[in-house]
Amino acid sequence: MKFGTEILVIELIGIIAFAVSGALVAMKKHFDLFGIIVLGVITAVGGGAVRDLILGINPPAMFQNSLYVFVAFLTSVAAFGFGTLAAIKLKKNRKFFIDIVNFFDAIGLGVFAVTGTNTALINGHEGNAFLAIFVGVVTGIGGGMLRDILAGKIPFVLYKDIYASAAIIGASIYYVMYINKVNSFVSVSSSILVTILIRLLATFYHLGLPKIPAIKIPKK
Amino acid sequence: MKFGTEILVIELIGIIAFAVSGALVAMKKHFDLFGIIVLGVITAVGGGAVRDLILGINPPAMFQNSLYVFVAFLTSVAAFGFGTLAAIKLKKNRKFFIDIVNFFDAIGLGVFAVTGTNTALINGHEGNAFLAIFVGVVTGIGGGMLRDILAGKIPFVLYKDIYASAAIIGASIYYVMYINKVNSFVSVSSSILVTILIRLLATFYHLGLPKIPAIKIPKK
Amino acid sequence: MKFGTEILVIELIGIIAFAVSGALVAMKKHFDLFGIIVLGVITAVGGGAVRDLILGINPPAMFQNSLYVFVAFLTSVAAFGFGTLAAIKLKKNRKFFIDIVNFFDAIGLGVFAVTGTNTALINGHEGNAFLAIFVGVVTGIGGGMLRDILAGKIPFVLYKDIYASAAIIGASIYYVMYINKVNSFVSVSSSILVTILIRLLATFYHLGLPKIPAIKIPKK
Repeated sequence: MKFGTEILVIELIGIIAFAVSGALVAMKKHFDLFGIIVLGVITAVGGGAVRDLILGINPPAMFQNSLYVFVAFLTSVAAFGFGTLAAIKLKKNRKFFIDIVNFFDAIGLGVFAVTGTNTALINGHEGNAFLAIFVGVVTGIGGGMLRDILAGKIPFVLYKDIYASAAIIGASIYYVMYINKVNSFVSVSSSILVTILIRLLATFYHLGLPKIPAIKIPKK
Repeated sequence: MKFGTEILVIELIGIIAFAVSGALVAMKKHFDLFGIIVLGVITAVGGGAVRDLILGINPPAMFQNSLYVFVAFLTSVAAFGFGTLAAIKLKKNRKFFIDIVNFFDAIGLGVFAVTGTNTALINGHEGNAFLAIFVGVVTGIGGGMLRDILAGKIPFVLYKDIYASAAIIGASIYYVMYINKVNSFVSVSSSILVTILIRLLATFYHLGLPKIPAIKIPKK
Repeated sequence: MKFGTEILVIELIGIIAFAVSGALVAMKKHFDLFGIIVLGVITAVGGGAVRDLILGINPPAMFQNSLYVFVAFLTSVAAFGFGTLAAIKLKKNRKFFIDIVNFFDAIGLGVFAVTGTNTALINGHEGNAFLAIFVGVVTGIGGGMLRDILAGKIPFVLYKDIYASAAIIGASIYYVMYINKVNSFVSVSSSILVTILIRLLATFYHLGLPKIPAIKIPKK
């Protein structure tokens, strides 16, 4: 489906959510205003930019409609202002603050996993389920990975809770529905909601994938 | 030369070798199962993906034949299972373990340096030796660099032993043979073997390139 | 404007400046000779490579004219030789040394912010001011960001002094002059000089963008 205004609104919610998370990480690292804006914008549009590089869409969508970057920019500046005001009170309400961020981040993850998959599908890759779902997941988690690398951290997605798994499930559900020509409103909204729900439940109950606790390979 | 089944087999050996090295780094960093798979897969196919971005091959080869990613995926899961089993015994056999990994890694390096160069050559860049060899080296070392960046480490290739140098020599030998129309079996196998040999000898004898030990520039 | 020899000379100055800064960071991190060359070359041509990926120029310009990489290579080797010689005396003249590096780095920033914008403009993006300026800034700051990420550091540009801001101003001035068909010598030289001046003044007076000092969000 070629999305219209509905998807623009949904994507802008994802943009805002991710820009907030990027700006917050930047503030925690004492970046200056430019660094805060860069991290906010890259978190918001970075996943989509990597998606477009993989699909060979030049220049990436973020340059074809500058509304995305503009909203990410405004959100980052607003987060900076809010952060300045809140710095004093924040110590009391940390838990609440983090919950809010996680909530928005889950929305961004769900939105971009599905719209990213859709971008692959409407660009002639209907027959390649692997590519379509992979690109969807990259769109969902790529911005956050770039954010963490730029902030000098190991990407969160690699070691904590169920995150990418939620994106894989959401993108897969959307792919199956798209191929079976399910009504686009139903397919988009349900696959986004499933992704968000899985992610929020994983956060709430601290669900994670199995790890190996004991292995220690010495440095060379 | 347009490679057929032979090169597929050779490349799959490289894929498996690099997936193991990525999965091991991820386990050392206590990533969860998803993180282990991601690092295994990115190490295995990341160099080729960067190569295809440089050459403008869209979508990258890893999406045109999902066998590569599938094998990398299975290898990472197997490494996870093996790692779980081996965690107890590993303390005794660390040295042996690292030697095995280095051996496989050398195979991957040799395979991808040569097949990466070949990809550039069969895509119309025969006249550009610099591009062809550069792309071959990137294919050989790119996956490991992405692995280290994602794991929060400085890429190994930048400071330790002879690694990229081996890839440069192997890619150059292959380029010269290709231009001089040497039989493809001879050119591929000999340039891969030379790369692997140089790398293994460098590991064994701890051969490195010169460094500056004393320079200290203060932080701003 | 399609630049000719003049721009080649200007760009080579930028290449040399950035290669020196990359090689110095590598020496500080005790990279070996290969690592020093890689970091020098990537710092010098990395911003342009990212620019070409965004604009869909395949293969990137660095492969179409290998002079750039060759000069970056020679500069890095020279920096290694100089670093070896200077390691003893450097302790006395650190301040002078850093000033020299900052001076060259400012030149590189100015040169690439403007030539990067120009690359977008001559590739058919005259109507997209956002894309043109963005790409110019990426060309100016991208090499240094890759350098810092590879060296295991948080990109300098994100938290220290006025750096990207100078590139944004320079790229914007050049864009406006280009659209208004100002003589190319005037537009190029003046916008480069403004960028360099702003950057040097910011370094000299330690001008920075506002930050939030107090915010502390606890780790999850």
